[in-house]
Amino acid sequence: MAWKSIGIDKYENFSEWYHEVLKEADIVDIRYPVKGMIVWKPYGLKALRLIQRILAELLEKTGHEEAYFPTLIPESIFSRERDFLAGFSGESFIVEGTGTKRFNERLYLRPTSETVMYHMWSMWIKGRKDLPLKMYQVVNVFRYETKMTHPLLRVREIMGFIEAHTAHATMEEAEQQIAEGIKIYKEFFDRLLLPYFIVKTPPWDTFAGAEYNYDFITVMPDGKGLELGSVINLGQKFARAFDIKFMDTDGSVKYVYQTCYGVSERVLGAVIGIHGDTKGAFFPPEVAPIQVVIVPIARREESDIVEYAERVKSVLESEGIRVYLDKDPEHTPGWKYYYWEMKGVPTRLEIGRRELETGTATIARRDGAPKITVKLENLVSELRATWSQINNSLKARALEHLRKLTLLVEKCEPVEFKGLIIAPWDGSREEAEILEKNFGKGVLGEITESPIQLPPPSQYTTCSGKQADRYALLGTTY
Amino acid sequence: MAWKSIGIDKYENFSEWYHEVLKEADIVDIRYPVKGMIVWKPYGLKALRLIQRILAELLEKTGHEEAYFPTLIPESIFSRERDFLAGFSGESFIVEGTGTKRFNERLYLRPTSETVMYHMWSMWIKGRKDLPLKMYQVVNVFRYETKMTHPLLRVREIMGFIEAHTAHATMEEAEQQIAEGIKIYKEFFDRLLLPYFIVKTPPWDTFAGAEYNYDFITVMPDGKGLELGSVINLGQKFARAFDIKFMDTDGSVKYVYQTCYGVSERVLGAVIGIHGDTKGAFFPPEVAPIQVVIVPIARREESDIVEYAERVKSVLESEGIRVYLDKDPEHTPGWKYYYWEMKGVPTRLEIGRRELETGTATIARRDGAPKITVKLENLVSELRATWSQINNSLKARALEHLRKLTLLVEKCEPVEFKGLIIAPWDGSREEAEILEKNFGKGVLGEITESPIQLPPPSQYTTCSGKQADRYALLGTTY
Repeated sequence: MAWKSIGIDKYENFSEWYHEVLKEADIVDIRYPVKGMIVWKPYGLKALRLIQRILAELLEKTGHEEAYFPTLIPESIFSRERDFLAGFSGESFIVEGTGTKRFNERLYLRPTSETVMYHMWSMWIKGRKDLPLKMYQVVNVFRYETKMTHPLLRVREIMGFIEAHTAHATMEEAEQQIAEGIKIYKEFFDRLLLPYFIVKTPPWDTFAGAEYNYDFITVMPDGKGLELGSVINLGQKFARAFDIKFMDTDGSVKYVYQTCYGVSERVLGAVIGIHGDTKGAFFPPEVAPIQVVIVPIARREESDIVEYAERVKSVLESEGIRVYLDKDPEHTPGWKYYYWEMKGVPTRLEIGRRELETGTATIARRDGAPKITVKLENLVSELRATWSQINNSLKARALEHLRKLTLLVEKCEPVEFKGLIIAPWDGSREEAEILEKNFGKGVLGEITESPIQLPPPSQYTTCSGKQADRYALLGTTY
Repeated sequence: MAWKSIGIDKYENFSEWYHEVLKEADIVDIRYPVKGMIVWKPYGLKALRLIQRILAELLEKTGHEEAYFPTLIPESIFSRERDFLAGFSGESFIVEGTGTKRFNERLYLRPTSETVMYHMWSMWIKGRKDLPLKMYQVVNVFRYETKMTHPLLRVREIMGFIEAHTAHATMEEAEQQIAEGIKIYKEFFDRLLLPYFIVKTPPWDTFAGAEYNYDFITVMPDGKGLELGSVINLGQKFARAFDIKFMDTDGSVKYVYQTCYGVSERVLGAVIGIHGDTKGAFFPPEVAPIQVVIVPIARREESDIVEYAERVKSVLESEGIRVYLDKDPEHTPGWKYYYWEMKGVPTRLEIGRRELETGTATIARRDGAPKITVKLENLVSELRATWSQINNSLKARALEHLRKLTLLVEKCEPVEFKGLIIAPWDGSREEAEILEKNFGKGVLGEITESPIQLPPPSQYTTCSGKQADRYALLGTTY
């Protein structure tokens, strides 16, 4: 069997490209017999774990502690905040009993954990000393999505949702926490080399039970917007619903202020969709399940070359580098080049007779930059330098991708555009509705941070001729 | 508020001791409003994560790859192996729909993952090259236990069940895999300093759908046996039920042979129950959420001592040691000593004026051995040496614990014993029933490995006067 590239242009047929990559690169298997739930294969799961580890470390470093709240939530607790119940009840999976017994109370499979978490917090938080409380958990969440499902992007069992929750004594502290949450996510997505807009969601579209939220939004090759993560100011709504109070230093008893923020496996979907190309997947070195693949260029009897390759492998492993030596005799080096490029391995080492004789290795980059041959003793540092160059090239490519799929419209004229639209706006619901009607896309929010520079909105008027003072981001989302 | 030790003898009142430790040491909160499901607090979860990491590393090192199979299992797949359905159906939580929609097919919350995993494997395994397949996953499993629940020991949502599954071309390979599984678990439990018997479960009591299984069994301070982990030879039962076949090198198509093995959060319950004492919890250094607590002996104005303590802290942190500096001015050093001993921190550093002036730190051990004062430059190596001594002392204590709660009965006379009973046996069901009746405890299996030396069973006869050729382990279990 000859291996070839995926060979599909992701901008022309994203759905086909994406499914081929998920399958051929062994990310997930979508043949699981429950719709919207998928099996994670080891290679894909490794990438997800590496991504999760970055975020968990960023959360730990900023004082968030990992906790765990159970999967099943009693209906009596779930329904305590009314907006929340309204927002989630229809899409929650419900347990009513076992094969032989019916329960007195229905149990919800967590669609998100605010309700049970805050129920417990009301017992934990007593005084000012208990604040701020900063926690996170890594859990699977379940949503019976009625929109079309897409592997990793919109699923019914979300894998490894990392949700942080905090409680504070004052609104100011909660707002500082929102800023910290945004900073954490910026660093997180920057390390994944993903470009994003940050938008503040309009009041009529905020998270159930929240005061306001910020969303990180990127764009996929089919032009659809993808919400990567959300940072939410819950204010005191849940504190009141769940009676989370503390005694302040002056002896008065007050409700806490809360925030929460979460990201999911979607991030891996974005990494694959944004960094991949016609050849297949392309993992940034930091989250690549295999960072280096070694391909010996040797005939079957040239065991000295394979031995040398083994030695190179141990050198890299001893430095904590994730390396794989492909010595399968049934495939040619050419086959292997294509195969591992498709799998998204960022660097390949070619090792043949010449490398053996000169004590070198030849580094080939997944992004196609010229190969270099380096001395074994410099290999680790050269690899690290190469990765840093790959990071820069991936970052530039990703920004280019985003530019290509984003359009700043200066006039209120209908336009056909496969991507995100940026339009001058005054923040009002009326103007948002006009924009939505005009462009056939939803207003995702007010842009508070853009990866591409935008002219001051004040030089524009809105559709109704009012003064614009901000930009709306419009898009169709997953 | 004065802190004091837990102050309960775990051998006299284990239940009270255990609940106090779980609560005061901040392991879990059992006030979650669904019976048998508990909230993991950060300190307890950290210990669990450290324990899980050891096992995951042992599995990875032996070639097991992490995968993930969804939580919800369609009834049609779940019911495909009849013994299995019979074994698990009554205790499985079932989803029948959402708040607004009823599904066509009932979905089971995984009580364990054989069925869906093997359903997928039948698609993945084609040829000899695909074997052996060695996978593991870390998931929560759900069992509607009808026995009394106990936090960590018998729960309805099992936290972080680590289950490995393998498929092989021959029975011999499967048996070698069973040996590898046992070896992995031995190393795992040895590193946790837990003593255990390995028993082969009698045929009438094996895991649903299995050929035979080995269980690792320890004893808790109340004398109850605790199954720590199970290593199961599934033979070809599931392969036939799920049609998992491969084409062998000679072109013939054969069913695979399978094994699986898993451990759960119970292991942490055992660590707490077996290593803890009247003072509270006692974590072995390798899995202690905090390995060293630094207590400055300073009056409020002696900030130079606290600064020195900060310096000591950074030295330890830079070596990857998990350290906490307790500079809370509201508590005395004495209070802190008790508090952190109760939390199970294995080593404490006392740092006062004398330590500051001599550039030293005083190491106090949780097990009460004499304190030593060491130079700062030797601190890290001295701490590591101290931990190794603590490991030895914990191991000896744990073995003593097990001896105390195990009784070898040489005669078939009823005896009242709060613990495990070892009795000569010939392996027959009849003799097992006599033993069970006689001692009022269940036969857990045939002892294949014992942490305490036993005389050859051949010198005994069974209750019916037959020749004994093995020992039965009897006990009441969680």
